[in-house]
Amino acid sequence: MKLLRVGTAGAERPALLDGSGVLRDLSGVVPDIDGALLADPAALERVRDAAASGALPVLDPAGLRTGPPVARIGKAVCIGLNYHDHARETGAAVPAEPIVFLKAADTVVGPYDTVLVPRGSVKTDWEVELAVVIGRTARYLESDEEALAAVAGYAVAHDVSEREFQLERGGQWDKGKNCETFNPLGPWLVTPDEVPDPQALRLRLWVNGELRQDGSTAQQIFPVAEVVRHVSRFMTLHPGDIVNTGTPAGVAMGHPDPKPYLRPGDVVELEIDGLGRQRQHLAPA
Amino acid sequence: MKLLRVGTAGAERPALLDGSGVLRDLSGVVPDIDGALLADPAALERVRDAAASGALPVLDPAGLRTGPPVARIGKAVCIGLNYHDHARETGAAVPAEPIVFLKAADTVVGPYDTVLVPRGSVKTDWEVELAVVIGRTARYLESDEEALAAVAGYAVAHDVSEREFQLERGGQWDKGKNCETFNPLGPWLVTPDEVPDPQALRLRLWVNGELRQDGSTAQQIFPVAEVVRHVSRFMTLHPGDIVNTGTPAGVAMGHPDPKPYLRPGDVVELEIDGLGRQRQHLAPA
Repeated sequence: MKLLRVGTAGAERPALLDGSGVLRDLSGVVPDIDGALLADPAALERVRDAAASGALPVLDPAGLRTGPPVARIGKAVCIGLNYHDHARETGAAVPAEPIVFLKAADTVVGPYDTVLVPRGSVKTDWEVELAVVIGRTARYLESDEEALAAVAGYAVAHDVSEREFQLERGGQWDKGKNCETFNPLGPWLVTPDEVPDPQALRLRLWVNGELRQDGSTAQQIFPVAEVVRHVSRFMTLHPGDIVNTGTPAGVAMGHPDPKPYLRPGDVVELEIDGLGRQRQHLAPA
Repeated sequence: MKLLRVGTAGAERPALLDGSGVLRDLSGVVPDIDGALLADPAALERVRDAAASGALPVLDPAGLRTGPPVARIGKAVCIGLNYHDHARETGAAVPAEPIVFLKAADTVVGPYDTVLVPRGSVKTDWEVELAVVIGRTARYLESDEEALAAVAGYAVAHDVSEREFQLERGGQWDKGKNCETFNPLGPWLVTPDEVPDPQALRLRLWVNGELRQDGSTAQQIFPVAEVVRHVSRFMTLHPGDIVNTGTPAGVAMGHPDPKPYLRPGDVVELEIDGLGRQRQHLAPA
């Protein structure tokens, strides 16, 4: 299934995109798409049955905003330097184990929402990523099978990053990762039955129409199952958490000088095979 | 006022400790103590009036658990190495600006709840901290006055840290900061009118009755107002967010070998002048 949330920010309603690409209203079946739904097999089954019935009300997508596909995200865990080619372009060594950092859930916005270039920023950068949405509590997992069983779905994520704030101010990366609007998510949460191999997904990102990133999750140093299993040793993942699994090569920081960092007026588009496409205008904060 | 939340985890009710130290039920006045309440001057005024009336129902504290004093915390922002003496004991240089990192809100537990030593941990450490609770959206603040106006109150926080996970696994600090139960908070949210000078608070921490930390917020490199103002340049603080403002000297990591890291069975007690006292048993995860 392709689950999404449509409507004004903070007042989205649950919806799904059916097999014919028609937008259908789910608000008569479940109150929202969130951790509580994703952790509830009976509720998910009701959604599946309603989708199969073909009787869900049709929604007119014209003028309808798309929000992030998950409400009340608890935390956004991110994996740094998880693609061989991206580690190379940043000059970093291949990590011996996943590099884990957090992004505040309040940075998550819809896939077509405006992204704000922070005040004082000269190094706002892009990162297309495969996001994993957690559907089952993950704590000290011991196998890849348990890890994949904790995955409720996949989505496109944009891990927007300010490199000067991230790397040139001392300390940790967090100053460059948590600016408002820095985590567009969606358009859809795609359930695992429609993603037979999460390690065979092409990811692309364009800036003003120019292709900047073109990678595959086959290049991940630590695949999805290993990432989820590893993270669960250090923190408990809860239904409704997301994990951004890293970005392939092609970010502005890895470009020869002058590096083409993002500026107000730019347009970024992102796409992952089968998970849909995002498009954001950049504007000043 | 001293606001708190009492009851079983996830089902706490709002309460206050009155001027005579009597526990009073607030559930007839407000539904909970959270960002929505803290951002609502009229609701806070209702609480203040109810407290002054002396007519709030008395609660029997016997057998009643105390939860964290704020529900639905959005994010927990932390400041690293913010005390001169703690920077010295860890061998770190005094930072040129606040070091900012995040802790997942799901690590927050009540002040007397059990703290779990993670599996495989040999370096679980303590950190008593002054937590600031945000009551007003803080975004690109320009003055210390604006920063202090965004503060809804203060509380004791325990920034439990696993040093091997934090420092010896490559990458960022996050693996050692986000283990479950790693952020006891409370017992109270104390409103600013009862904290005339947040830079004159004594902080102490004991392990098994032995005094291990004894500092003062007067030793903070970056005081509360500067921390909130600085953070607001890089991320937007929302009502119900908290900021842990760093720990003074005396952590296990700064101790000569053998370093007295925490083990199951240990008891940690923490106190800040006027903000109350915590007590946690350590148990295996």
